[in-house]
Amino acid sequence: MTSTTVEPLVAAIASGIEVFDLGRPLTVGMPQSPNHPAYWHALPRRHGDMVRSDGGSAANDIISMGTHVGTHVDALAHVSHDGKLFGGLDANQALTGGRYEQLGAHTIEPMVCRGVLLDVPAALGTPEGCEPGYEITAADLEATVARQGVEPCAGDVVLIRSGWGRHFEEGAPYIGRDSGVPGVGEEGARWLADRQVRAAGADTIAFECLKPGAGHAVLPAHRVLLVETGIYIIEAMALEELAAAGVHEFLFVLSPLPLFGATGSPARPLAVVRRG
Amino acid sequence: MTSTTVEPLVAAIASGIEVFDLGRPLTVGMPQSPNHPAYWHALPRRHGDMVRSDGGSAANDIISMGTHVGTHVDALAHVSHDGKLFGGLDANQALTGGRYEQLGAHTIEPMVCRGVLLDVPAALGTPEGCEPGYEITAADLEATVARQGVEPCAGDVVLIRSGWGRHFEEGAPYIGRDSGVPGVGEEGARWLADRQVRAAGADTIAFECLKPGAGHAVLPAHRVLLVETGIYIIEAMALEELAAAGVHEFLFVLSPLPLFGATGSPARPLAVVRRG
Amino acid sequence: MTSTTVEPLVAAIASGIEVFDLGRPLTVGMPQSPNHPAYWHALPRRHGDMVRSDGGSAANDIISMGTHVGTHVDALAHVSHDGKLFGGLDANQALTGGRYEQLGAHTIEPMVCRGVLLDVPAALGTPEGCEPGYEITAADLEATVARQGVEPCAGDVVLIRSGWGRHFEEGAPYIGRDSGVPGVGEEGARWLADRQVRAAGADTIAFECLKPGAGHAVLPAHRVLLVETGIYIIEAMALEELAAAGVHEFLFVLSPLPLFGATGSPARPLAVVRRG
Amino acid sequence: MTSTTVEPLVAAIASGIEVFDLGRPLTVGMPQSPNHPAYWHALPRRHGDMVRSDGGSAANDIISMGTHVGTHVDALAHVSHDGKLFGGLDANQALTGGRYEQLGAHTIEPMVCRGVLLDVPAALGTPEGCEPGYEITAADLEATVARQGVEPCAGDVVLIRSGWGRHFEEGAPYIGRDSGVPGVGEEGARWLADRQVRAAGADTIAFECLKPGAGHAVLPAHRVLLVETGIYIIEAMALEELAAAGVHEFLFVLSPLPLFGATGSPARPLAVVRRG
Repeated sequence: MTSTTVEPLVAAIASGIEVFDLGRPLTVGMPQSPNHPAYWHALPRRHGDMVRSDGGSAANDIISMGTHVGTHVDALAHVSHDGKLFGGLDANQALTGGRYEQLGAHTIEPMVCRGVLLDVPAALGTPEGCEPGYEITAADLEATVARQGVEPCAGDVVLIRSGWGRHFEEGAPYIGRDSGVPGVGEEGARWLADRQVRAAGADTIAFECLKPGAGHAVLPAHRVLLVETGIYIIEAMALEELAAAGVHEFLFVLSPLPLFGATGSPARPLAVVRRG
Repeated sequence: MTSTTVEPLVAAIASGIEVFDLGRPLTVGMPQSPNHPAYWHALPRRHGDMVRSDGGSAANDIISMGTHVGTHVDALAHVSHDGKLFGGLDANQALTGGRYEQLGAHTIEPMVCRGVLLDVPAALGTPEGCEPGYEITAADLEATVARQGVEPCAGDVVLIRSGWGRHFEEGAPYIGRDSGVPGVGEEGARWLADRQVRAAGADTIAFECLKPGAGHAVLPAHRVLLVETGIYIIEAMALEELAAAGVHEFLFVLSPLPLFGATGSPARPLAVVRRG
Repeated sequence: MTSTTVEPLVAAIASGIEVFDLGRPLTVGMPQSPNHPAYWHALPRRHGDMVRSDGGSAANDIISMGTHVGTHVDALAHVSHDGKLFGGLDANQALTGGRYEQLGAHTIEPMVCRGVLLDVPAALGTPEGCEPGYEITAADLEATVARQGVEPCAGDVVLIRSGWGRHFEEGAPYIGRDSGVPGVGEEGARWLADRQVRAAGADTIAFECLKPGAGHAVLPAHRVLLVETGIYIIEAMALEELAAAGVHEFLFVLSPLPLFGATGSPARPLAVVRRG
Repeated sequence: MTSTTVEPLVAAIASGIEVFDLGRPLTVGMPQSPNHPAYWHALPRRHGDMVRSDGGSAANDIISMGTHVGTHVDALAHVSHDGKLFGGLDANQALTGGRYEQLGAHTIEPMVCRGVLLDVPAALGTPEGCEPGYEITAADLEATVARQGVEPCAGDVVLIRSGWGRHFEEGAPYIGRDSGVPGVGEEGARWLADRQVRAAGADTIAFECLKPGAGHAVLPAHRVLLVETGIYIIEAMALEELAAAGVHEFLFVLSPLPLFGATGSPARPLAVVRRG
């Protein structure tokens, strides 16, 4: 590479891009699954606590959290079935020194690829969002593709909007323990798996359909995607702005923290489009 | 946007890209500044600890850490001088509810822009790396630009390779408390500031030149960049692979965690180039 | 002290003592105030993760928590009123380096003193426990003293049983956000303050009466005890066994962790009596 | 128990006691074993961050730590040999839900018993303290008993002063990785085991003799005490004041936090004597 050849991707962004932030701010008290340690942040040192003689001062932080907090991606090490992880790997053998050296979050390659948004409630004629506990079927996904005219392909990341993200700021209702939460079930997960997508995301905390009162115990889409087909799941995404802009195809970027041996990572996914 | 128009960025990546991972894996015991809480990770639950009746099991994590761990970006709230943050903002007034609502890590916009690598030791004829404690001067940066033929522009992210990153795996030597660490000083920081870059990164833990035995107390480049000019600093980057590939211009992507009110965020920056 | 004189306290215990454990086990998921980081524990290393060549192995832990978790004591630095801590100390001036050097948990002297249990529901004729939200009055405390025949004196630690501790294992009901929780109000706190006790404890999470739906926002007993009179508060104690044994006077021992600059400490208080 | 019978222990303390605090303050940056997560403390909320309309304000904390920090006690679940814990218990079978339900820190009964200080350097004629790396032999322990005239008995807690505690404030030297640290070896541990003590403590970080440069890998006294005989180990105690006062026999109190399933607990042990 020399100075005379401008990098084509740089040229592609030079004429103007728009970046949609699909990650939610991490704040103390935000809604999250009770199965994981809550996100906490504090400043052990604020400016003014210790000032150097030259007038300089640095503030710093401490964070305690699970990895499935805020917008996050599940590593394949997260879920097992009958003691097996993806690829039939024995879950105990995936451990080295007490961490999942195999299939841990550090093994998730950065995603820089085509992304497709499936705006399901728009296709279903309920643009505000699906009902609590509604199961998004394969037919719903097909109808959405047909309406949008953008087909998911192998290797894409597919984001399924249910509209539930509008409850995020409300706290407990977003978790939906009593009300239920809309999303795909086993059928929808298989539809995604058949398309050989690289990852699948949603605007809900558990990605999949939760029936009212059912809690977070039985999660068939996690089994289909994480265990059976090796497809990453991205949860608690902010998809409203992207949907409102009518963007259904984009450059998707997800660069999760390479947390060695962990079962997931908080992340801030991006959708990038070129304007003009 | 309709199905008949393929998103140009998607088309640009369709012909093949290469992604360089500029972030280091986060591991317990990795070298880091003693000024910040160390990175710790544990699995409160492993597969097998609790298995549901249907054979399913989920493992999960707890993480405790500072925000300036592993590869990370400094928010503008990190450093103050004479009680003032960037823009003359009073450091106490930047606080809301005990967190830096102003200039905190959540205010760092995702970076999807041109990136430039300045391979300083290659230009200085010591490709392995600069000597411990060596101060990279403005003349060195100019010589590097001249050799590479790639000029940093306003809004770019500039990554300065010192070669020190090859010590990362060694642990304590990477910190360089006794030996010193190469990097820019106040002069080099002003050179960057004059070019109005958006962010500046390095393959060292403190970004700037540390003289032998000087410790991490006096950091003039942090003052110039974070406090005086509002330029983000990215530390502990993995730049060896990018340099070895001779890539000096690329699409740079950095999507830090939007940690509300924090002084920085661990991150996994990417350099993307198109091949063919 | 020589070998010929046996320490009298040692002689006193030699004839047989009974130790009542007034602290609750710290477990992940136990009920606690949402104002404080929840207690989390994990084993970063289990036996078998790393075994030395000689067959030895050590397991270890990581804990993340607030300090007001499980059975715990409030330091005087915990609560302020109009910017003042106990003794009129300016709350900001109590800080050194970002921690409460003055009145922090490390300033709580170990307590080895007389303890008195006031079994209020027994005196009120409802031995199972007071009703949710019931305010224990000064008259109730007097009636309890009269029934028991054990008078609190200056320097004693007084433990007030409400009976609410029987809900601890139930989780959320113990917090009583909706139902309310029995306890003293401002009047009962003044009764304790008038007796110049050293510390006051209860079997509830907030020590004081919480009216149904009122939450944990207004806590007059905290103001009276912590701010106005410098009396420590001990919360979430296990008092049922002590009450069932009919023990109303005992050697009380509380040795909180000397957490430098913290606002409280988890602790395991003991009541010791001599039998025979 | 009625009002007419004063509790004898209360009577015993009424004539005046002296309490020696054998625990060290927990401070950020204090010396500790690198095998365990370091102690960190921060105030997520200080007074003034959020003030209620009535003028009240509460500050709170977050703590992240291992359990073997500061003065602490090792649970029997801490060390295994050939996969077995104390009593031949299989280390994996001791786990329930990912925590050591058997032999974890919550199974340590509070200690209210006779305590004996063995002031070894005083007996050896080097009252300041033993040399770095010095192994305290059975003969040394016998000589100390003979000099003091206070014999340890079954069920006692025996505290072995090496004098090393005077280095605690110095930080790294206290760990003694290069210099070595004085303490008992396997022989001294067997001497303690033969006396059937309940627990054994020391003023060092690892309890036992560390030869210069040997690190903390091979710990025979831990095997003898924790694995073979079920005797608790207490580390990093503050014994200087007790020794200076010439107190060799006392009421010992240790009430560790009942951390469910953990391998140890920070604690603040006390030595109580009656004066006059």
